[in-house]
Amino acid sequence: MSKGLTKRSDNYSQWYNELVVKADLAESSAVRGCMVIKPYGYAIWEKMQSVLDGMFKETGHMNAYFPLFIPKSFFSKEANHVDGFAKECAVVTHYRLKNTEDNKIVVDPEAKLEEELIVRPTSETIIWNTYKNWIQSYRNLPILVNQWANVVRWEMRTRLFLRTAEFLWQEGHTAHATKEEALEETRKMINVYADFAENWMAMPVHIGTKSDSERFAGAEETYTIEALMQDGKALQSGTSHFLAQNFAKAFDVKFLNKENKEDFVWATSWGVSTRLMGALIMSHSDDQGLVLPPKLAPFQVVFVPIFKNEEELNAITEKVRPLMDELKKKGITVQYDDRDSQRPGFKFAEYEMKGYPVRVAIGPRDLKNGTFEVARRDTLSKEIVQESQLINYIDNLLKEMQTNIFELAKKRREEQTYTVDTYEEFKDLIENKPGFILAHWDGTPETEEKIKNETKATIRCIPRDLPKEKGVCMVTGKPSAGRVLFAKSY
Amino acid sequence: MSKGLTKRSDNYSQWYNELVVKADLAESSAVRGCMVIKPYGYAIWEKMQSVLDGMFKETGHMNAYFPLFIPKSFFSKEANHVDGFAKECAVVTHYRLKNTEDNKIVVDPEAKLEEELIVRPTSETIIWNTYKNWIQSYRNLPILVNQWANVVRWEMRTRLFLRTAEFLWQEGHTAHATKEEALEETRKMINVYADFAENWMAMPVHIGTKSDSERFAGAEETYTIEALMQDGKALQSGTSHFLAQNFAKAFDVKFLNKENKEDFVWATSWGVSTRLMGALIMSHSDDQGLVLPPKLAPFQVVFVPIFKNEEELNAITEKVRPLMDELKKKGITVQYDDRDSQRPGFKFAEYEMKGYPVRVAIGPRDLKNGTFEVARRDTLSKEIVQESQLINYIDNLLKEMQTNIFELAKKRREEQTYTVDTYEEFKDLIENKPGFILAHWDGTPETEEKIKNETKATIRCIPRDLPKEKGVCMVTGKPSAGRVLFAKSY
Repeated sequence: MSKGLTKRSDNYSQWYNELVVKADLAESSAVRGCMVIKPYGYAIWEKMQSVLDGMFKETGHMNAYFPLFIPKSFFSKEANHVDGFAKECAVVTHYRLKNTEDNKIVVDPEAKLEEELIVRPTSETIIWNTYKNWIQSYRNLPILVNQWANVVRWEMRTRLFLRTAEFLWQEGHTAHATKEEALEETRKMINVYADFAENWMAMPVHIGTKSDSERFAGAEETYTIEALMQDGKALQSGTSHFLAQNFAKAFDVKFLNKENKEDFVWATSWGVSTRLMGALIMSHSDDQGLVLPPKLAPFQVVFVPIFKNEEELNAITEKVRPLMDELKKKGITVQYDDRDSQRPGFKFAEYEMKGYPVRVAIGPRDLKNGTFEVARRDTLSKEIVQESQLINYIDNLLKEMQTNIFELAKKRREEQTYTVDTYEEFKDLIENKPGFILAHWDGTPETEEKIKNETKATIRCIPRDLPKEKGVCMVTGKPSAGRVLFAKSY
Repeated sequence: MSKGLTKRSDNYSQWYNELVVKADLAESSAVRGCMVIKPYGYAIWEKMQSVLDGMFKETGHMNAYFPLFIPKSFFSKEANHVDGFAKECAVVTHYRLKNTEDNKIVVDPEAKLEEELIVRPTSETIIWNTYKNWIQSYRNLPILVNQWANVVRWEMRTRLFLRTAEFLWQEGHTAHATKEEALEETRKMINVYADFAENWMAMPVHIGTKSDSERFAGAEETYTIEALMQDGKALQSGTSHFLAQNFAKAFDVKFLNKENKEDFVWATSWGVSTRLMGALIMSHSDDQGLVLPPKLAPFQVVFVPIFKNEEELNAITEKVRPLMDELKKKGITVQYDDRDSQRPGFKFAEYEMKGYPVRVAIGPRDLKNGTFEVARRDTLSKEIVQESQLINYIDNLLKEMQTNIFELAKKRREEQTYTVDTYEEFKDLIENKPGFILAHWDGTPETEEKIKNETKATIRCIPRDLPKEKGVCMVTGKPSAGRVLFAKSY
């Protein structure tokens, strides 16, 4: 493992790119814009998946699986959706390769598809085409389905986790008998995401709705959770869409309601992706490497024996094994690093880089004294702990760290959140002290567009969780119903 | 739910197709050859995934994720592999659509890829191209990685679960310093698959190796588990490949061994897919619908209250709730079907179709008597059980059913397994009483080919778990080292 990262203060973007690779999370692949998620990075994603999946099931959803490919014509059926999604995408045109006489492999021109297939950028169309056959009456509703899948959007500028051509995500697609029920579902799921972000990722978020121009293509309302990264840029971390009857109309999905009248079905969709990995990394990590909230760390504790020979190692191992078993019994994940091919200093740096929450070192002298050196990753501080207290100490420490990491991120966000009343001040802050800016806006797409063009800041959301106070737009002076949340964003 | 299936004895293939749809497992999609896995079917697959994933981790593997797309040129690098896989596949040639003037969506000819991308039919090539950068010395070995993913093989004739253009699977890809270690891994993983098949799917399998012609494209040895379906056709249910140094050579993956000498890395790969769903269905199900081994049933027990009015329902619910909680505490999954929109008879048929292992009915009279009517799915028999005994009764019943279903499948396999010495007898059996046939073969691809052409039977494997006895080939009379396992297959 090569040591050392670019400092965040020197070049935040380079720091991020180096960290992702050096912490063994992901790397670029031979296919432009597609990433390889490495085992350690994938283990974090798996933890996130497993928690979210549990939350989805707790709220009554089941998983299913729909095709990777979508016929091109499906995209034309929902007018807004096609503009949003059927542009930069991977198009399958042929279904066979063949050998030429000089033994090269070429696409077989005879095997051209009648209709091209699009690798799904999102699955509303193929799913609503399927739901058509599942729904006849209100008895078939609601349908509460989620899918874990890979999707492809042909991005020109890509960054590991944050923006990749192929990424992994979940997409919930629900069908309801009434508008109210669909709206309730939309809100329920954005709350699930916020709960996950704050209580598992230790990442504070604002919940709100998107402005018209930032809304999902095909939605009537998009709820979002927005987090602030350490460099003052916002990261949209999850969205939940109220799709009204748009897709039901596009795919002719009608049902008989309780009054025996025909109506179109109401829809929602909601998703989070491997982008959350980027959000997690940028929320907490430091110049030494990754910092993970203990609840999402694949390995929460690592024991590093310090030894000169096998005899010393054996004595330490004998001491450590039962303690590791006790930790495991408490549901704490533990590793033991007895490699003799690497020195302790190298190992320490590696676990700091990879963000193991707790590192326990023990050498021959500790063994004699019945002590352990316990290092915590968030503060990088160390403490000598007596053997009799070790289990409880670690158990409490992990809980304390989870809270501490969240509080730190929250404090940072507060420090980087500004309330401004003039466009001058706004421009100055966005340029020199980026962060969340609460400002009044007149509600028009024109003003929004002007701000975006002049400052690169966008409306992240019309916040739901902040007090509403009337005012005047900082740009046009027209009336505003309440401040909205601006930021530059990923 | 429409009732009734075609009988297996009338038309096995139609019975299967109907069952898959009527038990709510899967259906065909709008995309040729691609299936929709419905929530109930996916819940079974998730159970299988979760058990297998645990077994992989138990044996030291971690999950990772590699790109969906593979550059066309990668397939040319391993000579055998290209013939096996780079033929019928989905080819991405463009990365953008555009609107025409008359508002149609067409492929943008400007957005043609320089090199076509293949949707992965299997990932050896992209993974070994990645491993090249992960491996420098023996310290980086072994790499024990698995991937859960979707893959695409452009099949012309498709059947739900058994043969679909897109399917879900896992593919393990490991890298080792020595041939012995790679061989050991290959065998370890086929044993894991056999363990899963027999102890979870309740499906007896033969373990063996493939003949040259049936081997994985790029492997030096392919281990397989072969199961027998009720119609006497074999189903290859999992394979584990010893890839020797073939992919390391193709992608130039060398390492420094402990003696500081350069060598190519040794490889294995192994996989099972949603095909196992087909195997599970065909192993146990009957003319009433799906039969599931309790260990893989998404819901092991369903309570069906029989009531005329809300008062009766409430009284039953009050009785049943605490019992359901007790079952849940034992790790048993339970559903309560209090829909008033369907009659009990309809519900009973539905749960039989969907293969719920245990169905518990309770009406007002049972309530008075403190009894329950417990129906088991495998034998379709019913028993009246006293309330005080219900929990233990169900707990034991589920275990008994798991064993019973396996023993039944084993008995059926034994009845359909024949040992023959003449080709005449072989042809007669294959034609009239299909099943596994143990017969002598001279070991040549010519004889194998002749048998296949004349009878459609193939060598399923050279069995590892059956006694070896020398003999003479039933076709050519040449010497044979031991009987091999023939069958027609899916």
